[in-house]
Amino acid sequence: MTTTTLLPSWRPGTTRDALVSFLDQCRTVPVADRVAYFDNDGTLWCERPTYAQFDFYLDALRRRVADDTALGEREEFAALLSGDQGRVAALGLPRIALALAGLFEGQTPEEFAAEVRSFAATARHTTLGRPLRSMVYQPMLELMEALRDLDFTIGIVTGGGTEFVRAISEDFYGVPAELVVGTLVDYTFTRDPEGRPQLVRTAQLLGGVNEGEIKVSNIQTQLGRRPIFAAGNSAGDREMLEWAASGRHPGFALLIDHDDAEREFAYVGEAVSLDGQEPITAVAGRQGWTTVSMSREWDPVFSPAE
Amino acid sequence: MTTTTLLPSWRPGTTRDALVSFLDQCRTVPVADRVAYFDNDGTLWCERPTYAQFDFYLDALRRRVADDTALGEREEFAALLSGDQGRVAALGLPRIALALAGLFEGQTPEEFAAEVRSFAATARHTTLGRPLRSMVYQPMLELMEALRDLDFTIGIVTGGGTEFVRAISEDFYGVPAELVVGTLVDYTFTRDPEGRPQLVRTAQLLGGVNEGEIKVSNIQTQLGRRPIFAAGNSAGDREMLEWAASGRHPGFALLIDHDDAEREFAYVGEAVSLDGQEPITAVAGRQGWTTVSMSREWDPVFSPAE
Repeated sequence: MTTTTLLPSWRPGTTRDALVSFLDQCRTVPVADRVAYFDNDGTLWCERPTYAQFDFYLDALRRRVADDTALGEREEFAALLSGDQGRVAALGLPRIALALAGLFEGQTPEEFAAEVRSFAATARHTTLGRPLRSMVYQPMLELMEALRDLDFTIGIVTGGGTEFVRAISEDFYGVPAELVVGTLVDYTFTRDPEGRPQLVRTAQLLGGVNEGEIKVSNIQTQLGRRPIFAAGNSAGDREMLEWAASGRHPGFALLIDHDDAEREFAYVGEAVSLDGQEPITAVAGRQGWTTVSMSREWDPVFSPAE
Repeated sequence: MTTTTLLPSWRPGTTRDALVSFLDQCRTVPVADRVAYFDNDGTLWCERPTYAQFDFYLDALRRRVADDTALGEREEFAALLSGDQGRVAALGLPRIALALAGLFEGQTPEEFAAEVRSFAATARHTTLGRPLRSMVYQPMLELMEALRDLDFTIGIVTGGGTEFVRAISEDFYGVPAELVVGTLVDYTFTRDPEGRPQLVRTAQLLGGVNEGEIKVSNIQTQLGRRPIFAAGNSAGDREMLEWAASGRHPGFALLIDHDDAEREFAYVGEAVSLDGQEPITAVAGRQGWTTVSMSREWDPVFSPAE
């Protein structure tokens, strides 16, 4: 592959040079150590003004309320459906999230995945109007392709729901289910009326929200290989990026700077570390990570809408 | 591939016919659903008279006691080193296992993997004298190869330690770390003196022993795809085999019958279900699984010792 076909949506400059140089260096790394993990929301696709998973939950709620209006009277759901952010905030995100997760309680994994895929096939971004799959960042798809050409194993390590992301990861990113690590719901093992094994979703989380230090522990326990490349955009990615950058081989940590109010959203100033003390961009500068400016270095931002 | 080069160590007969027929049917299954999981101990390699992981633990204990004789005075270790099975049994397996797991507390994942690999490179079977890697069943390697030729995703779902199996899975079986699901130890996230993230082993399990119903739940949470093929040899594999056999596509459940006292070990009669009520071979017969007789249908049993 020549450099003219490599990373075409990355404008020439220091970030693209750093990536090309890293890709070149990796040819000397044993293939088993060529491992790259990507955060999802805000790193591989747009996360503003709301997470796609939240849009899916809200869509599922609306469909269920259409069949059962009484459901809409539950306090958390009434607040959500009113669109009144003050009412939602007053109840608190954990309570809202738990109520929404409860919508899928009792589903088999196959039923849940089918519902996500049905949503993903037709959903449009709430403000930009583009199909969901075209909210994926074209430069990041090209980066994944370049890593794959070097026989990298590529995974997604997300704070989002594992099963939500798995339902679209092969289709959107070419990443198989076993390489998606996120926030897990617990299952109950049961048997159907014919005595066959069955798993059904509970509304309880298994192992906490996959952010921060937990991303590193979950990479070890669920994937088992340390990355030499990681990409993220928020404080919840900090430890994973540090983990990738500080291993045995030369590592690469890529931070996405959302500074593009015109084509996407500009909100980097809000991305402080989990302890609220230091902006993640400052951590990046101090640690020598590579920060990409979406507004200056990506063209286009999004994958084609076809 | 012609049938003469397919599964050469499987003697002609009903089991081989059933496997060849299944492989042929799979050509119509979508590639994303071509998923096969194998138990490890007693399914991919020999588990008698002791698990290889136990042999590794004992070897590690002996090496540590050589450096620190006082360690050998600890009650659990004294019992183990005496070789007196009565003393070991009196203390109970859980207590012994916990003491042995403690030998690795504080290690990084890399340190633990290096210790396993060092053992695996030189260890010999305690009674048969063969190198550890030649205790792998040749017919099962050929079956994995035939599944891979059909673009199957192949994983190992074991009651053994996840990290122990991961340390050898790529080399012995061609299975990458992320496709190994076993019994997990918990890690502590910490930082080294330079402030870099570090994971260190604890002596606590994370999520219970990976047997029975837990195998099915862990397949869903850690791998995310239901198998259409599963192989096992014990009651701890029952639910996984049922899960593979009863999905959307035609499934295949393979049970290894250890009936070969001459070349390996004969102990099928002991393999009762976890509730102690029904031999796993009886479950297999009732559910229409395929049971392979090691003594009559495999030739050779083991992979070459070279």
